[in-house]
Amino acid sequence: MLNGERQIPRPLRWAMIGGGRLSQVGYKHRSGALRDNTAYQMVASAFDIDAERGRDFGVNLGIAPERCYDNYRQLLAEEAKREDGVEVVSIATPNGTHYEITRAALNAGIHVICEKPLFFTSAEAQQIKALAEKKGLIVGVTYGFSGHPLLMQMRAMIAKGDIGEVRMVELQYTHGFNANDSADKFSDAQKWRVDPQVAGPTFVLGDISTHTFYISQLVLPELQIESLLCDRQSFIPSRAPLEDNAMVLMHYAGGAVGRMWASSINAGAMDSQCIRVIGSLASLEWSDANPGELKYQVQGQPNQVMHHGMPYLDASALADERLGALHTEGLAESWANIYLKFAIAISASQRGDKARLSNLIYPDINAGLEGVRWLENCVRSADSGSTWVNYQ
Amino acid sequence: MLNGERQIPRPLRWAMIGGGRLSQVGYKHRSGALRDNTAYQMVASAFDIDAERGRDFGVNLGIAPERCYDNYRQLLAEEAKREDGVEVVSIATPNGTHYEITRAALNAGIHVICEKPLFFTSAEAQQIKALAEKKGLIVGVTYGFSGHPLLMQMRAMIAKGDIGEVRMVELQYTHGFNANDSADKFSDAQKWRVDPQVAGPTFVLGDISTHTFYISQLVLPELQIESLLCDRQSFIPSRAPLEDNAMVLMHYAGGAVGRMWASSINAGAMDSQCIRVIGSLASLEWSDANPGELKYQVQGQPNQVMHHGMPYLDASALADERLGALHTEGLAESWANIYLKFAIAISASQRGDKARLSNLIYPDINAGLEGVRWLENCVRSADSGSTWVNYQ
Amino acid sequence: MLNGERQIPRPLRWAMIGGGRLSQVGYKHRSGALRDNTAYQMVASAFDIDAERGRDFGVNLGIAPERCYDNYRQLLAEEAKREDGVEVVSIATPNGTHYEITRAALNAGIHVICEKPLFFTSAEAQQIKALAEKKGLIVGVTYGFSGHPLLMQMRAMIAKGDIGEVRMVELQYTHGFNANDSADKFSDAQKWRVDPQVAGPTFVLGDISTHTFYISQLVLPELQIESLLCDRQSFIPSRAPLEDNAMVLMHYAGGAVGRMWASSINAGAMDSQCIRVIGSLASLEWSDANPGELKYQVQGQPNQVMHHGMPYLDASALADERLGALHTEGLAESWANIYLKFAIAISASQRGDKARLSNLIYPDINAGLEGVRWLENCVRSADSGSTWVNYQ
Amino acid sequence: MLNGERQIPRPLRWAMIGGGRLSQVGYKHRSGALRDNTAYQMVASAFDIDAERGRDFGVNLGIAPERCYDNYRQLLAEEAKREDGVEVVSIATPNGTHYEITRAALNAGIHVICEKPLFFTSAEAQQIKALAEKKGLIVGVTYGFSGHPLLMQMRAMIAKGDIGEVRMVELQYTHGFNANDSADKFSDAQKWRVDPQVAGPTFVLGDISTHTFYISQLVLPELQIESLLCDRQSFIPSRAPLEDNAMVLMHYAGGAVGRMWASSINAGAMDSQCIRVIGSLASLEWSDANPGELKYQVQGQPNQVMHHGMPYLDASALADERLGALHTEGLAESWANIYLKFAIAISASQRGDKARLSNLIYPDINAGLEGVRWLENCVRSADSGSTWVNYQ
Repeated sequence: MLNGERQIPRPLRWAMIGGGRLSQVGYKHRSGALRDNTAYQMVASAFDIDAERGRDFGVNLGIAPERCYDNYRQLLAEEAKREDGVEVVSIATPNGTHYEITRAALNAGIHVICEKPLFFTSAEAQQIKALAEKKGLIVGVTYGFSGHPLLMQMRAMIAKGDIGEVRMVELQYTHGFNANDSADKFSDAQKWRVDPQVAGPTFVLGDISTHTFYISQLVLPELQIESLLCDRQSFIPSRAPLEDNAMVLMHYAGGAVGRMWASSINAGAMDSQCIRVIGSLASLEWSDANPGELKYQVQGQPNQVMHHGMPYLDASALADERLGALHTEGLAESWANIYLKFAIAISASQRGDKARLSNLIYPDINAGLEGVRWLENCVRSADSGSTWVNYQ
Repeated sequence: MLNGERQIPRPLRWAMIGGGRLSQVGYKHRSGALRDNTAYQMVASAFDIDAERGRDFGVNLGIAPERCYDNYRQLLAEEAKREDGVEVVSIATPNGTHYEITRAALNAGIHVICEKPLFFTSAEAQQIKALAEKKGLIVGVTYGFSGHPLLMQMRAMIAKGDIGEVRMVELQYTHGFNANDSADKFSDAQKWRVDPQVAGPTFVLGDISTHTFYISQLVLPELQIESLLCDRQSFIPSRAPLEDNAMVLMHYAGGAVGRMWASSINAGAMDSQCIRVIGSLASLEWSDANPGELKYQVQGQPNQVMHHGMPYLDASALADERLGALHTEGLAESWANIYLKFAIAISASQRGDKARLSNLIYPDINAGLEGVRWLENCVRSADSGSTWVNYQ
Repeated sequence: MLNGERQIPRPLRWAMIGGGRLSQVGYKHRSGALRDNTAYQMVASAFDIDAERGRDFGVNLGIAPERCYDNYRQLLAEEAKREDGVEVVSIATPNGTHYEITRAALNAGIHVICEKPLFFTSAEAQQIKALAEKKGLIVGVTYGFSGHPLLMQMRAMIAKGDIGEVRMVELQYTHGFNANDSADKFSDAQKWRVDPQVAGPTFVLGDISTHTFYISQLVLPELQIESLLCDRQSFIPSRAPLEDNAMVLMHYAGGAVGRMWASSINAGAMDSQCIRVIGSLASLEWSDANPGELKYQVQGQPNQVMHHGMPYLDASALADERLGALHTEGLAESWANIYLKFAIAISASQRGDKARLSNLIYPDINAGLEGVRWLENCVRSADSGSTWVNYQ
Repeated sequence: MLNGERQIPRPLRWAMIGGGRLSQVGYKHRSGALRDNTAYQMVASAFDIDAERGRDFGVNLGIAPERCYDNYRQLLAEEAKREDGVEVVSIATPNGTHYEITRAALNAGIHVICEKPLFFTSAEAQQIKALAEKKGLIVGVTYGFSGHPLLMQMRAMIAKGDIGEVRMVELQYTHGFNANDSADKFSDAQKWRVDPQVAGPTFVLGDISTHTFYISQLVLPELQIESLLCDRQSFIPSRAPLEDNAMVLMHYAGGAVGRMWASSINAGAMDSQCIRVIGSLASLEWSDANPGELKYQVQGQPNQVMHHGMPYLDASALADERLGALHTEGLAESWANIYLKFAIAISASQRGDKARLSNLIYPDINAGLEGVRWLENCVRSADSGSTWVNYQ
């Protein structure tokens, strides 16, 4: 169980780019990174496109005024001059800027933690992967709910054969907060998400379903998509060509199949993302609306519900537990867990501890690359008349 | 509210063909028809392919021994000789016999209530429809859960515009009872379902998802499928070409989309069928696992749950209520409701009351035809590489 | 599994007293008795205090006009004259008439099925018990939901020691339909329930919580109350001295404790009755809002949910199953089950089959007597300042 | 919405007493206090009765070694010598030490945040209250889940009359983790809780149900208990006289009634605490197992569920929101909220801002005192034969 004690020799010097006062996700980054003050210290920032607002915000959070920068270029340039300059930056800016900021940070010798979807193209992701490897730097991707301990439980049980042979993977990330277009018009946080220049080639597929797609890879590391069909819609026509609803079918190597439903027009839905993995003997199901429960349904036996923090769980799940059984955990604990793993990876990288790196499970550059690759295949299918495409 | 009082001048003389001692569904037919003894009297039977067992069973249920027939041919022939012969038969035999028995009964001047899927082809359904019209006889189809009062509520609310413009229809009928093949081998009730000669061109699509498909038509009478894609699997290889899992995508006229998931390999799932209709303002969701509750989720407002039997419901929903609020209803009440509507239709037909017939909502020959047509399109798509096909 | 086949040599000749057109519970009696037409035939009635309305109703249900009587006295007198006279009557009249009608019926040599609470006093119940024994007649009590198969499962598991030593019994039957007094004023079905002359010494304790109390006795046949404390309220003052809310504490022999909460002012509650039995190893919980599920919670293990109709259940639970797994059962199946057991008891009694009687578990005269006794103790406690009283 | 920006001029210098490496609750204190680094800085500690282990732990958390003290006396003495000495301490030691540490800290001019139950007697609480007032210092009590935004929603709706006149308050905090005595024997965290010398006059009443009792006072600030009855049990006999199960009945001024059930022998229960407030028009219900949902059930209308973070909530609820709708919050956010309010209170106290203090709603010394008072009345009742006692 985690109790905040240091897992690495000293906290990393950390900065945020984007994620300022008006950003909801920015607070999740900070809550995740600063949960215990033993993994990160927030020493610099370029929080906002409105530099003054960003500086004021940074100061309010306790950053030294001179390290509250106007923009990421200034941040990288000035911090490079300091002996105690930042070691890692988190990027919580609109999608269209991820690539250039990541590249610049890596070129400045700084580790990167970046929002999803990582980039617009898998070619970009491949370049960044090569660059990071060359530089010996870590790139982490904030698939925010993927740090929940019960997902490690799911992974462990599937690996042990508890559900038999995998047959179907049912994925969903839907809500209804864009059922109408008012946020498109009035919310700065939403406007750019439906602008292909800034958001990239997808809206809901990239914005939300990449989370669930990564979770499917986390719990099913062996599964490979062979072909895929994506059918997407723009129920608010002004969003076209970007989709506010998408239905994906997948064929995996070995005969298993899958579905994904991504939507922000699922009016009134308050249960977000869900993954169900169906095996020949049993199914496992987890939803982030009730993240402390894992359904384990063995055909022909009473249905079971496993609870976080309980001694019967796998060691890998208990290792990431923070509050203990009966004490409801939420999204913040998951962010704290993935940020802690980023820090462990970065520290191992700094120390050249390849063994530690090799068995650390977290959303790394490959996870980011796979997310972009999946989106590319989805778009390719959708744009060719929602037909089956070989997964490339 | 229904309390068993007669809705038609006198109970109809009714017989069952199939659905004998070993049949689970046979009891649902009897429970539905005989709920109040004011709609039907069970006067004859041909319960079983094992004539002796069928006769013994019929006598045990109170049928006169001489009217417990060896098979449907004998039943039709002998009953035709009686002044008090049967007026309506229910057919609960394997799919492959529906067509010939229905045709024979109609030709004998007898109304028919038949299990789903109605026939193997829509051409057969068209022929039977023409025959029934010519004879002035009713053909009802036992989509068993479609009689639940909250489905009338759903229909009424959608018609009133309570959810806005319909955007997506999410359909599911899945369970895990055929996750392995033991029933295929050892259960008479299951064996024929995976034999194309007897079951027809589908297994789970016809066996279970036609129920949910009809419910979608019941609550959304205006919706028309324009094209459809079906991807089906035989996870137990011996079932091929029949599927034990199928994923269907649908495009409706006007831009709405839909999904159906039919499966009998959803290991451990105990929640059967579900329908969610998503509109531009709100969603409605109903599941037969908790049939007395209807979720009404208006975007931006607290989620609502409506309960059966409550005065705030639409008159059409309250008209079909039997037990009253707080008193849990199940599948049996739904069967009783559709059987009652069959009786009302038959009686109206006998009396030539076309007005009564014209505004009676129940699963009639058209509902049966539409189910077969949907299956045909699914199979055509699946067999052409799971591609989109225009709905024919 | 039950499929409607006869369990007794021939259906019993049955009549209803009360429970006519305006009665909600009357339909439950008829649905229960006539489920399969192999246990009862409804041959006579005295449905209504408005004799004309009662006759019209009876005729509409198919009873011969001459056997639709004006009142119970006439019914008993006239039926006594017939060779094919009624063998058993069901009493669904207001509480205050149960005693006299039951006594009259027994004196006429007729078996009785009666609504709860059986009588006003346990002295009356003792007299009736003696009379029934003397006459060799059955008295059954319609604790309507007590026939659900999963209650037999609960009983079997507790008996087998699956939950360890019983420590606490948590009981609840609450709703909010009398949160205000409009029904008291305008509903004939409600008016008498708050009139002590007709309802007896309690309102909600007798009207609803006797159901749950009986269920506690059904699943825990060994448990004996030693002392009890009842605190009751009349939130609608005009109901005083009758309570619309009551909280009961119980001490059982051996150290276990219990609680009961009965209420009709639990505004907005739609989940009716619940029983949770806590043992030293595990708990079992069942609610009539979701009657097909039984929660089995072993401390330190994943929580389990058992479903009706599944092969892993105890034989005693499967014996009472009607629809099968996945097919939602409700209150009507439970009524059918207890009515069937009444019929089996009556038939055994007629045939002098004491062995059959001795191992038949159903709500008999003793169950009715215990309910009245419990109410007496509750009232005695409440009237003495809500103090502990020794159970008498 | 809270995003971590400073609410007070600068973070408070804070130390922990108790709550070290083996303590589960210690991590909750730290997570709460240090959520944003704008309310508290952890500068000193006396974490552990094993001083060496405590020092090692403190260093691992980033505290300067010289400020990792052996015990609270040393901490208070040494910090008093520093210009930058601690301003506030949190006490997470066993109950029996709360009083002396609190008194010593206040006498040293230091604000106090203390675990519940605050002290053994209300006399002690009154003394501390007087001392704190004399010194102008804050005493906060860590009723950990009381900071959830939906409790403010509940309070606001009740105040606005949304549920009508309050009739019943149903309270529960139960689990099954002490169904057997293994933890009593082997867990240091549990041993002292069943030792009256250390735990005080109660086990589960003080250990868990004081949380729920405070929540009832938070949402119903006007409600006054007039009399109370407590029946408590020691199902593990070695725990006597301390209870592992207790049932409390309450009579409030004005006629409302209440129940509390506290238990650590509720085998298999994983849903912890629940509060339901029943009014003449509607009920509100909240459970910490699903803290982001508030049930609002208006009699005669569809049941409603309100979700955290939604614009339809009261401003007081939205003010305490951290993650936003759809993003699951848990116990940690609640701790962060109450710790933030403690900081605001302390800062206001330091600045002499009485206006800010007067309208700040948080668990203060009065809340702690009321908890102890409630326990005293419960024990007095239980020890007098579980009889009604006037609330003193």
